[in-house]
Amino acid sequence: MYYDPVETMDRNKLEKLQLVRLKETIANAKATPFYAEQLADISPEDLTSIKDISRLPFTTKDDLRSQYPYGMLTRSLDDFVRLHASSGTTGTPTAVFYTQKDLDTWADLMARCMFACGCRKSDVLQNMSGYGLFTGGLGIHYGSERLGMLTVPAGAGNTKRQIKLIRDFNVSVLHIIPSFALYFAQKVQEEGFDVRDMPWQIALIGAEPHTEEARRKIEKMMHIKAYNSYGLSEMNGPGVAFECTYQNGMHVWEDSYIVEIINPKTGKHVEEGEIGELVMTTLTREGMPIIRYRTRDLTRFVPGQCQCGRTHRRIDRIAGRADDMMILKGVNIYPMQIEQCLMSMPEVGQNYLIELVTEGVTDQLKVKVEIKDEYFVEDMRVLQGLQKRIAKNLCNEILLTPRVELCQHDSIPKNEGKAVRVMDSRKK
Amino acid sequence: MYYDPVETMDRNKLEKLQLVRLKETIANAKATPFYAEQLADISPEDLTSIKDISRLPFTTKDDLRSQYPYGMLTRSLDDFVRLHASSGTTGTPTAVFYTQKDLDTWADLMARCMFACGCRKSDVLQNMSGYGLFTGGLGIHYGSERLGMLTVPAGAGNTKRQIKLIRDFNVSVLHIIPSFALYFAQKVQEEGFDVRDMPWQIALIGAEPHTEEARRKIEKMMHIKAYNSYGLSEMNGPGVAFECTYQNGMHVWEDSYIVEIINPKTGKHVEEGEIGELVMTTLTREGMPIIRYRTRDLTRFVPGQCQCGRTHRRIDRIAGRADDMMILKGVNIYPMQIEQCLMSMPEVGQNYLIELVTEGVTDQLKVKVEIKDEYFVEDMRVLQGLQKRIAKNLCNEILLTPRVELCQHDSIPKNEGKAVRVMDSRKK
Ligand SMILES: [Zn+2]
Ligand SMILES: [Zn+2]
Repeated sequence: MYYDPVETMDRNKLEKLQLVRLKETIANAKATPFYAEQLADISPEDLTSIKDISRLPFTTKDDLRSQYPYGMLTRSLDDFVRLHASSGTTGTPTAVFYTQKDLDTWADLMARCMFACGCRKSDVLQNMSGYGLFTGGLGIHYGSERLGMLTVPAGAGNTKRQIKLIRDFNVSVLHIIPSFALYFAQKVQEEGFDVRDMPWQIALIGAEPHTEEARRKIEKMMHIKAYNSYGLSEMNGPGVAFECTYQNGMHVWEDSYIVEIINPKTGKHVEEGEIGELVMTTLTREGMPIIRYRTRDLTRFVPGQCQCGRTHRRIDRIAGRADDMMILKGVNIYPMQIEQCLMSMPEVGQNYLIELVTEGVTDQLKVKVEIKDEYFVEDMRVLQGLQKRIAKNLCNEILLTPRVELCQHDSIPKNEGKAVRVMDSRKK
Repeated sequence: MYYDPVETMDRNKLEKLQLVRLKETIANAKATPFYAEQLADISPEDLTSIKDISRLPFTTKDDLRSQYPYGMLTRSLDDFVRLHASSGTTGTPTAVFYTQKDLDTWADLMARCMFACGCRKSDVLQNMSGYGLFTGGLGIHYGSERLGMLTVPAGAGNTKRQIKLIRDFNVSVLHIIPSFALYFAQKVQEEGFDVRDMPWQIALIGAEPHTEEARRKIEKMMHIKAYNSYGLSEMNGPGVAFECTYQNGMHVWEDSYIVEIINPKTGKHVEEGEIGELVMTTLTREGMPIIRYRTRDLTRFVPGQCQCGRTHRRIDRIAGRADDMMILKGVNIYPMQIEQCLMSMPEVGQNYLIELVTEGVTDQLKVKVEIKDEYFVEDMRVLQGLQKRIAKNLCNEILLTPRVELCQHDSIPKNEGKAVRVMDSRKK
């Protein structure tokens, strides 16, 4: 069951559709002051394959700032019915504008996402996120109504009322911020309810980055299936990519977005399956098209076909920000890769420290890892075995063998209560 | 210029349209468990004129509570896409459900309201009220987008950011809570801006009841035109009645609502122009029709034709709650009438006290009024003249001459800092 037939479109056809829409997007974008200049030398007919997108210039957050507020708009302000803006009161904000058609497209993409993870017209969705300028609130709200779900616009806060609404209206789908979910599960129990008796079945938890472990913990504590999503206001908001019921990567809706993954230093495409910076191009936005947007978010394509039958490629959960990337011996390393690898091992505690040091003439990667008390045994051979396993797992992930040092719980220094994750003391 | 041609429809035609829709509404309502019983003896064909509505039973807030959550719905829950609920966590709440068609109708009514007070597609509206379960936020939001205004979903709070958004995006229309408006005007000045330099022109301030004096003060302090509106979640939310640019009463959209004004004690229609309880019937709501809903809100019809050309009748600003009504010598009196009359006189201070006392065998109305220091002169003749003028003004309003007593600033006792307005010490 799919929300839109395009979800299973043959990839050749899909790429042809992308090319047609990319050409339209370029033609449309040239109506803006910004792209008129950026794309002066490019004509839509120059593109003969979707791969030619690499000939187009990138668009950055700073570009959006420089065009604030109206420089990215293809038409008169009269034609726009919504804006979302970044919320700062200092510095230059960014703003995203929507025509009525753009809102319609967005609602449909959002509905498609929710359908993919099992939501149906007969479901009742409680939107537990704040509304307002944050795209997550109204984005989910419009998508939920579009799918035909009974939508409860609860907003954030007021835990007791949230529980009452969920019980009174048989709420089956929650839109909940992951960092709030565990607190909420506990509150439900404190109010005297068993989470297994609650009517909920599905949690949409994409609003903030979180680890796979956090997801599994939410699922267990709340007795629910939790689905990750990806979105950013520059690409409308939520609704860009969403997990299907297989929970193995997020399908990006490639009929609406061209997705690339690049090396953030060189700007070139990374190898298939390699981590890099996500770059996105809108294909169905009439009011404010954005071409090759540098999201600064790190991810990789999940290889292979998804069992659900959707042909749109999947991206992995976000593995940090491009600005975090380290280069060692010519290899790109992201702290999040190391964290995810460490946290998947039951022996590893909460804290670790990544150190980059110069020893002689070469740079080295050292990883200090806190081991849980129950695993910190006196038998040196056991500890050495663990040390080797950690080093090997890390090597599999980052393609370099680090020097691993084990240490006891709470022995890594903290900064204002928060663990320091990376120390770079290399000689330049 | 009108948003919908129905706004100027000939009243005979309008009443015929109401009758047709009332019959449809009755037939539709009979699909609910509640009205199937309530209207068991009534068949749509029995009604030959819109006046026959008085043969239908009233629906009260308690009825809605007793039917919570699904007893008022005409169709399967699957067909609903939104609910708004009263926000309490104790007691039985009430809930209002909307189909997609109901949301469309509501958005159109809301857009019609905003158009009537001068909003146009080219305007930029900043929605400064909270979203969520409160119908004011999403109601205004959907109406604004429907009218084609560029909508800034700012939400409540964060005054500095509100100011930045208003300036950055040339906001011409504010949806702002009246009690926040004066604070906001002051903040704008504190931030170093002149209200006359702000881009705003129109304020929609209907979310809470307020006096005409409060409106004039907001208009002066903010250098803006402020328009009052009326709505309640049982009748969708905002969008029921709205002021046109003549600011002389709120046009009720009679193609969508039948409006009656009754004596809250007898349930009979009051004389034209007399204050009473507003009773409303939905004519265009498919999912949850409500017949003769006792709003408990007091108002009166504004007599005569409006200069704007709209034929839909106007109601006056809300003059309190039906529960506040007092009966003295067979005359209905509402504290709000007395307050409005007193507050329109420049000599009168902040506080007053209405006393109902038994003297001998008859009941009497006494009104104690605090006079501003600058008017509390030693010349008794001046004070007696003022006393007579107050009594005469009150008599014009309530059709009874009260005994007026003048007193000095701060001489009326307060209860936890709040003035006591009514003391009824009559012998039963
Ligand atoms: Zn899938
Ligand atoms: Zn008028």
